[in-house]
Parts: sequence; structure tokens; C-alpha cells
Amino acid sequence: MDIRVDPQPEADLPADVLERARAVAAAPVSLVTGVDVALIAGGGMPVEAGNLVDYVARAANDFASQIRMEKGAERVAALRAELARRGLDGFVVPMADEYQNEFVPRHAQRLAWLSGFLGSAGAIIVLADKAAVFVDGRYTLQVRDQVDLEVFETRSYLDVPKWVGETMKTGQTLGYDPWLHTETGVKALLEACEKAGAELVAVDGNPIDAVWTDQPPRPLARIVPHDLRYTGEPAADKRARMAEAVKSAGASALALSATDSIAWLLNIRGADVARTPLALSYALLHDDASVDLFVDERKVDAALGAHLGNQVRVEPEAALALALAGFRDKPVMVDPASAPVWFVDRLEQGGATIVRKTDPIQKAKALKNPAELNGTRAAHKRDGVALAKFFCWLAANAPKGTVDELSAVERLQAFRQQGDLFRDLSFDTISGAGPNGAIVHYRSSERTNRTLALGELYLVDSGAQYLDGTTDVTRAVAIGTPSAEHRDRFTRVLRGHIALAMARFPKGTTGHQLDVLARMPLWQGGFNFNHGTGHGVGSYLGVHEGPHSISPRPSSVALEPGMIVSNEPGYYKEGDYGIRMENLVAVVPAEPGEDDSPFYELETLTLAPIDRSLIDPAMMTGPELDWLNAYHRRVRDEIGPRLDDKTRAWLEAATAPITA
Amino acid sequence: MDIRVDPQPEADLPADVLERARAVAAAPVSLVTGVDVALIAGGGMPVEAGNLVDYVARAANDFASQIRMEKGAERVAALRAELARRGLDGFVVPMADEYQNEFVPRHAQRLAWLSGFLGSAGAIIVLADKAAVFVDGRYTLQVRDQVDLEVFETRSYLDVPKWVGETMKTGQTLGYDPWLHTETGVKALLEACEKAGAELVAVDGNPIDAVWTDQPPRPLARIVPHDLRYTGEPAADKRARMAEAVKSAGASALALSATDSIAWLLNIRGADVARTPLALSYALLHDDASVDLFVDERKVDAALGAHLGNQVRVEPEAALALALAGFRDKPVMVDPASAPVWFVDRLEQGGATIVRKTDPIQKAKALKNPAELNGTRAAHKRDGVALAKFFCWLAANAPKGTVDELSAVERLQAFRQQGDLFRDLSFDTISGAGPNGAIVHYRSSERTNRTLALGELYLVDSGAQYLDGTTDVTRAVAIGTPSAEHRDRFTRVLRGHIALAMARFPKGTTGHQLDVLARMPLWQGGFNFNHGTGHGVGSYLGVHEGPHSISPRPSSVALEPGMIVSNEPGYYKEGDYGIRMENLVAVVPAEPGEDDSPFYELETLTLAPIDRSLIDPAMMTGPELDWLNAYHRRVRDEIGPRLDDKTRAWLEAATAPITA
Repeated sequence: MDIRVDPQPEADLPADVLERARAVAAAPVSLVTGVDVALIAGGGMPVEAGNLVDYVARAANDFASQIRMEKGAERVAALRAELARRGLDGFVVPMADEYQNEFVPRHAQRLAWLSGFLGSAGAIIVLADKAAVFVDGRYTLQVRDQVDLEVFETRSYLDVPKWVGETMKTGQTLGYDPWLHTETGVKALLEACEKAGAELVAVDGNPIDAVWTDQPPRPLARIVPHDLRYTGEPAADKRARMAEAVKSAGASALALSATDSIAWLLNIRGADVARTPLALSYALLHDDASVDLFVDERKVDAALGAHLGNQVRVEPEAALALALAGFRDKPVMVDPASAPVWFVDRLEQGGATIVRKTDPIQKAKALKNPAELNGTRAAHKRDGVALAKFFCWLAANAPKGTVDELSAVERLQAFRQQGDLFRDLSFDTISGAGPNGAIVHYRSSERTNRTLALGELYLVDSGAQYLDGTTDVTRAVAIGTPSAEHRDRFTRVLRGHIALAMARFPKGTTGHQLDVLARMPLWQGGFNFNHGTGHGVGSYLGVHEGPHSISPRPSSVALEPGMIVSNEPGYYKEGDYGIRMENLVAVVPAEPGEDDSPFYELETLTLAPIDRSLIDPAMMTGPELDWLNAYHRRVRDEIGPRLDDKTRAWLEAATAPITA
Repeated sequence: MDIRVDPQPEADLPADVLERARAVAAAPVSLVTGVDVALIAGGGMPVEAGNLVDYVARAANDFASQIRMEKGAERVAALRAELARRGLDGFVVPMADEYQNEFVPRHAQRLAWLSGFLGSAGAIIVLADKAAVFVDGRYTLQVRDQVDLEVFETRSYLDVPKWVGETMKTGQTLGYDPWLHTETGVKALLEACEKAGAELVAVDGNPIDAVWTDQPPRPLARIVPHDLRYTGEPAADKRARMAEAVKSAGASALALSATDSIAWLLNIRGADVARTPLALSYALLHDDASVDLFVDERKVDAALGAHLGNQVRVEPEAALALALAGFRDKPVMVDPASAPVWFVDRLEQGGATIVRKTDPIQKAKALKNPAELNGTRAAHKRDGVALAKFFCWLAANAPKGTVDELSAVERLQAFRQQGDLFRDLSFDTISGAGPNGAIVHYRSSERTNRTLALGELYLVDSGAQYLDGTTDVTRAVAIGTPSAEHRDRFTRVLRGHIALAMARFPKGTTGHQLDVLARMPLWQGGFNFNHGTGHGVGSYLGVHEGPHSISPRPSSVALEPGMIVSNEPGYYKEGDYGIRMENLVAVVPAEPGEDDSPFYELETLTLAPIDRSLIDPAMMTGPELDWLNAYHRRVRDEIGPRLDDKTRAWLEAATAPITA
């Protein structure tokens, strides 16, 4: 149903209040504090809070309802008319916004608005007579459900160059918005166009924005300081340290669009996008350790100003263009894989020299300091309490047939919200019963919701944002009695998880090297899983962060102490069930090796029982069973004392030792 | 002692016979056929064979005796004078010859001649007032023994750019011989020079050749057809198949300097360098599948001419320059990582377009066909017989203190020479007793020879060239009773070996991904080994070949069925002992995985017992012990029936099952 905003009740409110209210509605509403009425009021006249909260809810609902598959034909037609007006033969619509962050705010969900596709990665190319949605393996099925196949063909993301080569003609022009593509991304598009003899053209102003008449505003949410007790390092020290990195790379400034880098650098957190406390902004870090922060100034209150100090100049986003143009003959560092190519264009127009280097903040941010590591350990204990309560509740209720995917999600969130320092989920919970568990990036909806049924597996992948740490955990559990096949596959996945968890490795080892450990027990049976084994995780920041990973994809980034990474092998049988076994781990120093050479190991952070009914101990080696029993003892010892009697009794049974 | 050739006895021989005799002496003498007197005679007047054989032996001795560390100062001084004469400030002396093969013929051992260093990898840079030998980690100790440290400083190979940056001054010139460097290699040198502000200059004629007055001639050895029963594919088919690859890469010809590629392509084998049946030559493969083979025509007899057929034109090496200059406006494929940069220079001067691609023959050669795989299986059985005899003899004699490293090498070679189709060793045997076993690329000499002693480990790494296959095997054995530490380290190495041997993996998996399997049991104890886990092996060709490997060094080359690769983790305790456990394995199809997806596994080719006294079964898992016992049963079943009673009895005990 398409609920439109009724302007009547707000007729008495001033235009600027309504404008702020719509912008607040374009940001997610805090699970902890609700709608930020004071921000909407803007320190001006008193306003009726109830009315405002209602208005924000309706506006948010309106924004959400704009994503509609059945509008695809009409919207693509409007876009085509706009392209024709501009003399363009085609246009690339990426998933990303200017910040290349995985959670994209409402106004920048252009791909979803155009097509209805709600995956987290992909691209659309619209030509005069053809349009295609390109997605990766995770979304092959989902995309066909979510877009109008009369309007779009669906293709593999890898086919972009081939498709461009086949469909575009010599001399044709393909437009792209230089704000929404990195230089690395544009290079790939350029190659594809060159092969087709087509020309790739940067547009001035996104043509979708021109036809999206009720496009939501940019989100408005207050930016807050992130306390030193959680960050462990004052922002001034971080600025000085990173300014040294900029200088030693031969640059006089670093141009930043990565909002997680900015959040870490300045010890600030925002609320502009879902599930990650980011503030949409740009920044220039100068070699004198001062920063220009380009941001909607309504988000910055006095407390934040005091926190930032006089070495951080807050400026409106519109001032960025002029600032980038002011580096004539100076070297400016840009990460070609994360900054919009618009940065590079603008800097070059201004006569700056581009120093192309990986953003040094990404690695610095990945190396958690002791305060951050202790914070995440504490957060994982609180998360473990919520998980124990949830799985205890699930064990009692699911076999009765009274639990479905959506009610499970609600219950799990409720348990988490009881924990101290909880701010939000870290991503939308994946709650997949039976065959839905086999969809790797499944999100339950009313349409797909399933009751958890006896004899089936249930997969739940979830996480939370606490002020002191970000969590991410997956468990597969059997509802009732699992089959022999369930146990075989689960035990293989678990053995892979344990092989990685037990790894000890010398300095310099990459996650790419370790990846095979998590796969070999599956490979031995002719099975595999079609995703990485581990992604980096932030400290009250992104639940997916770089630069490290554990993956079959080549990477030269070594795992270093302080990095947090997930350990999540899985197995998926389409149309039947899904298994994933995910704990977060931290890279920590191990006992040094021979000649005192540095060795590292993985400290498991996540504390939640592993379903014993899914384990076949006969398939496991002695050291694997030892690991499992020691892990369960740890869960019992650390989480048990924080539980009520009933839940503790359940946990003790759920973590009892297993022998071969 | 410097034995000079006495010209007297040869006074009666014609000059061309003597010239051929010296050139034959510059090639290794066949262990099977001895000196090729007919080749020296050249089909001309009859000559006295005994006299000639004697002459060849003395000439070879003379060539070998030219490598002398104590001449370093004098030779570097002569080189400096030559550089000054040419107006060069420095010169790079690589280990490689024009063919970038690991076994370098006498006349091209310029680095060894200049310095005395006998390692298999390294480089020297000579400046007016400084000279440095750059070696990798394997040779850090050896180089300090073999070069005059008054003349050369010794540095890590990784330090070349740093050293050039520190020692060369702006405007200085560094010479290099474009025949001896690949384009990839030159790029690295260029970068180093650019940083120093120095200029890298290609020389015309190697300045070392100008001062090396008694430089041996280029080697002369007969080229022979390699029979279809061993190659499994007629050369005409190979030429056609590779011509297709050249065409599909958009080239009209492929310029080849890789002598192993040429040998495989034409089904020919030579004898110009030690331990690998290669013929020094260049070739052009045209898109019509015809070949120009540039080679010393004295090596080509009528039988070979018939084998090559009329699609292969034999031309003198001197004709290559003109041929490369004849590709105006045509695309020519060159492998920038294997061809001399001289090829590129010459082609560009002639107006050709360079298509830079990895030589497609390298991969085609690595994918052994059924005839080659069956050949190598048969060769490994004969090799296994020799190994059983050797280890039986060793077990009987070493504990008496009557065996030393050199006598063991002799005995092992003698056993191998008894086998059918034996042609040569595939590399100089590494025979290291006690602490010598810890030197990864150790070669015993009279000076370093050690008696095998009770309580010590003995490491022997050896292999042979059979017409039907190339072998390479390492075993560590305990002389008398090993220590608990020996057993612990050996069992870790063995567990790593077994983890790799048991691997099953999907299509697309690289050796880089699998490498960690062979290391984890060592890493768990804080140990490691400082070399790759596996290298490719040829089919009666190089004992080290690409493009695949199993290594911590990143590689995107997937392991594919037909590839032969070594599985050789190790452990080295400097000054004490060395352990390496090496079998060759072939990548073969495994039972397909789910959805019929291709999976591969490793078939072990090498058949030799693993010293049971070094195994601690308590450290091993059930599946590891099962692998070990099944392997030993296979050795017993396949090798036992080919042995005399005494050796068979020994083998049965040596391969008896072990239980935990």
C-alpha cells in the first residue's frame, strides 16, 4: 500500500522545522532514543513532540514505500527521456553512494528506486532499448524476484564488460556520476567501453535525481563524540599519527570520503545510515594534523564542537569543491579504491598532484588498541547473555511450532536491547528457517516468513552495535531431531571453523593463506561454500571493514594483532537448508616461535553455544573435540553467572562436554 | 690445483676437431654414453677416440678450475678497467644466461667466474669502488664462504634497489647485458636506478666476456628426438595447438628463448647443460604452426632433421637478429618474464608490435598427458627400487660409521644407473649429515664431507632423469636412535606432508592456497621452513618448472590435472640437523563434488619408505596414521616384488604398519 504524507496536521509548523523533520526521517530512528525531536526543533520555538514523531514516522514510511518493483517500467522510461535530453545513450547506476559504504541512505538508493532490487551489491546499466541488472552469485535468485523482468535482464556482475561490448555501439556514450564511482571502478568501466568503441562520460548532476521527483532529502542525525574510554586514543593523537603517514607518503593532505575513516579519526559517531554509526561527511587531513570536516552543520552541536577542538574546522559540504581546487602544485593523497573519482577530477582541475595510496586510516582503524579489544570482549559477553536467552527461548518454543522467522528476529532484538551500551543492531538479522537458510543474504519478510518446523534447520546470523564494540554471530540449530546429512554437513563446517580457530601462524601470514583451513573438511566431501570465510569488524563501527579478510580471493594484507575478523564457514543446500558457524575472533600475539620470531593466534570473542545435536563426534579428531569442549566450558563460565536460573540450567546442558 | 691443457698430444688433430672437442667438453659428459666422439669427429677423418676422450676430460677440468674465489680481486679489477674503457660506472652480473634456465653452461657462469660464488641464484653489481653479491636467504651463509669478502660485500637480494640508491650517484651509468635480463627484470633495475638518478644502459657485448680470456666455448651436444611413446603427442600436433594459442592472443608469432618450451614443443632433447636435457637454442613459432629453430647446426644430425620435418627450419643462431627484425607492423608474442629484453629491443627496432603474454607452452607443458603420467609412474617405480636398495645399504652400513656424504652420493647414483631408461641425475644430490642437513641447498664437497654418525640425522635429496620421467625425492633418516626432538620435528613435518597429500580441492584452487596445510603442524609449535612447499616437475625435462607451485608466495596459477608438483615441507636447525620430507605428486581428478563440480586430488608418485623411527604416532591423528600405513603398504606392494630377498626383507620391516 502506498501511504502518502498528509500535509494537513503539519500546516502550522514552520517550513524549516518540516524540512528538518523530513531529513531526520531520512535517517534511521534510534532504537535507544527514538526520534530526535530537539534536532528537528532546531533550538527554536517549542513544538508538539507527538505530532512531530508522527510526522517523521509517516515520512519514513513514505520513503520506504517508494521502492517498488512495479514502477520499474515507468521509472526507466523517465530516465531514458532524461538521458535523451542530455544526449546520452546510456547510464550506469551503481549500488553505492558517494561514501562507498554498504548501508546506503534513502536518497541515494537510486538503484533500488529504479528497479526494486534490494540486495547489497550490484549495478544497473540503462540503454535506450535495453537495461540490465548485474548482481553477484549471492543475488542470482533474489534479483529475479525483485525486479520486473520485462524491463531488466539479469546478469552476473562479471559480465558487465561483455554486456557492454555486445550491446553498445561504436561512438555511443555511456554516462556515469563521478560522485558514485571510485577511480578503480571507472577504470573497469573505461576498459569495457573502449572494447565496444563507446565513450564513457561523466555527468554533471545525477539524471535519476532529475526524474525522482519525491526523492528523500539527505539524512539528518546528530553527530556525537565517541568517548575516550571506548576509543582508547584521543583524536588529536590519531590526527597527528595519520598526518605522519600522509607526510611519509609524500603528500601534504589526505582527501577522505570514507565515513568510517572519518569517524575513527575524529572519535565521532553519527546516525545517518542504518546499522552503522556513521555521519555522512568528507574530510581533508592536512600534514599539520588539522582537519577540514565538510558536513551538514545542523548535525554539529556545541558539545561536538568542543570535542572536535580548534584543529578541526567544520565547513558545509558545498565548500569541498573549492577546498579541493586549492592544492595547486601540492601532492594530495587519494585512495583510488574508496574516494569518488570526482575528488581526483576536481584536484586535477585545481592543479594538484594525486598521490594514489590506500587510505592509511583503514589499517590503523583495523588494529584495535587494548581499550577497543577490552571493549569488544565486554560487548561480546553482553551479547552472549542475549544469545543464551534467545536460544533457550528458542529451544523451549520452536519445537511447539509457535516460532517463525520474524518473531524470532523480534525476540532476539528484545533480548539484545536489554543489554547495557546497546545502540542498534549491526545489520538486519538473517533469520532463515529450512530452505530460507540456504539463501546466504536472506532477509525475512511477511511474504517469505516461515514457521520453524521440526526436522528442519534454522539459521540465524545477527549482531549488535554496542558503544564498546560491534558483534556478529551465526548459529545453525536443529529444530527437533536433525538428519544424518544435517549432522554430517554441520560437523564438516564446524571442523573448518575449529581448524581456523586453532591456527597459530607467523607474522606476515594473510587471511588468504589461512582460508583453506576452514574449507578442507567440506572439500574432502566434495562440498564448498560460495562466500569468504571472514571479514574484518569494526569497534562500534562497520560490521564489515577492511583491509583484511579471510578469503579465497587473493589479498596481500597480513593478519596483525588487534585485527578483528569473522570465522564463518558454511554450507548451503538450495531449497533445503543452510548452515553457517560464525564467531568473531581477534588476532593476538601467540607465544613467540623459534628465535623469538613473532607468531599470532586467534582469540575467540563470541560466546554462544554450538548446537550439540548437530555434531557427529565420530567425525572429529581428539584436538577438535578438545577445542569444542573448552569453548563450551568458557561460554558456561563467562555467560552462566549472568543468567537467571532457568536459562543457566539450559546453558549448562547445551554446553556439556562431548566425547567421541 | 690449476690443471692447464697441454696442447702436445693433440698437435696432430685438425683445428676444427679440436674446436669441437673443446665445445663438447663445455657440455656435461653423459653418464650413459660417455664422450660423443662421433660428434667431435664430425663425420670426417677417423680420429683416435682414447686421445680425444682424454682431451675432453682435461678441457672440462680446465673449465671447472677457472671458478676460483681467490681470483676475485684480479678479475673485478679487469672488469673495472673494461667498464672504464667503455665509459660505464657500473655493471650488473646476473646468475642467468640467455635462456634463464637454472643450470647455466660453463661459458655463461660469469657470476661464478667473477666471484667464486656457486649458488643457483644471485646477482653481482660492480661499481668503480664497490662491489656487492646479492643472494637470497638460502645462500646467506654459503656466499660468505665462497667469495672474497675484501672484494665483495654480501647483501640480501631484496636490498638491490636500496643498495643502488645508496651507492650510485646522480648521472652515473649502470650497464647491463640485454641478453641476460628479462624485461621484467630490467624494470626492477630501472626503478632502482631512477630512484638513484642513475641511468641504466644496455651494453653491446658482455664486458666480462672481453676480459675472460680463456672463457670456455658454448657447449656442443647432439640433439635427439624424444620418442612419441614418452611424449604422448606428436610435435606437429603440439605446434598446431600452440599456434592456435598464439593466434588467439592476437599474435602472428611467438619468440621463444625458453629451452624447455622448445624441447617440449618439438619433442627434442639436448645435452648442453647439466642435469636437464636441454639444447641451447631460440625459436620462432609462427601462426601457421611452422617453426624457425635457431641452433648450432653441428648439433643437428640427419635423424633429427627427419624427426623435425619440413615445417621446422633449422637456422644458425646468428640468423635470429635478422628474423626478429622482419616483423614490421606485425604482432609478436614475447613472455616478458622469460625472454631476454634483447628480443623486445630487436623486435621494436624492426617495427613489430609486442604482445606481452606468459609463454603459453609453459602451461601446456605442465599439463602432462596420460603417456607422460604413465611414464612418470613407471620411472618412479624404478627410482623406488634404487631408493630401497640405497636405504637398505645405508641401514646396514651407516651405523658402523663407514658411510660419508660423498660415498652415499656415489652409492645412490650407482643404484639409479642400474635402472632402465636412466639418463642422468636430475640435480646434484644433496647429501647432508648432521648440521650439513640444515643447509637447504647444500652440496657436499671434499672440504665439507662428513661421516654419518650415530644419533645424527642424515638428509638426502636426489633425483634422476629417465627417458620416461623426472624424479625428485627427499628423505631424512636417523642414524642409530633419534632424539625426542628429532622425532617431534620430523612428525610435524610429516603431518604437514600428509595434510597436503590428503587434500581434495575444487577446480581453481592455487598452490598458494594449499601451502598452509603443509606448515600448520610446524607453526603450531612455533616452527617454520624458509622455502616453498612445492615446485613443478617436468617430464624428462626440468626438475623445477612452472607455472605452478605450492608456496607462501602469491600465485594465481590454479593446480590442474596433469601437473606434477613436489610436496616437501621441512625443518632446519642451524648447526644441528635438517629434515625434509619430499614426494612428488600429480594433480588428478577426484570424485566430482556436489552438482558434479570438478574436484582434484594429489596422487603420490614417489615410492620410498619414510623412516619409522622418526615418527611419534602419539602426535598423529587416526586419518594421518591411516595415510602413512596405506602409503607404506603401497611402497611394499609396488617395490617389494622388484627387489632381491635381502632388500625386500628390509623393506617389509621398514614399511610395517604403525599404530598410535
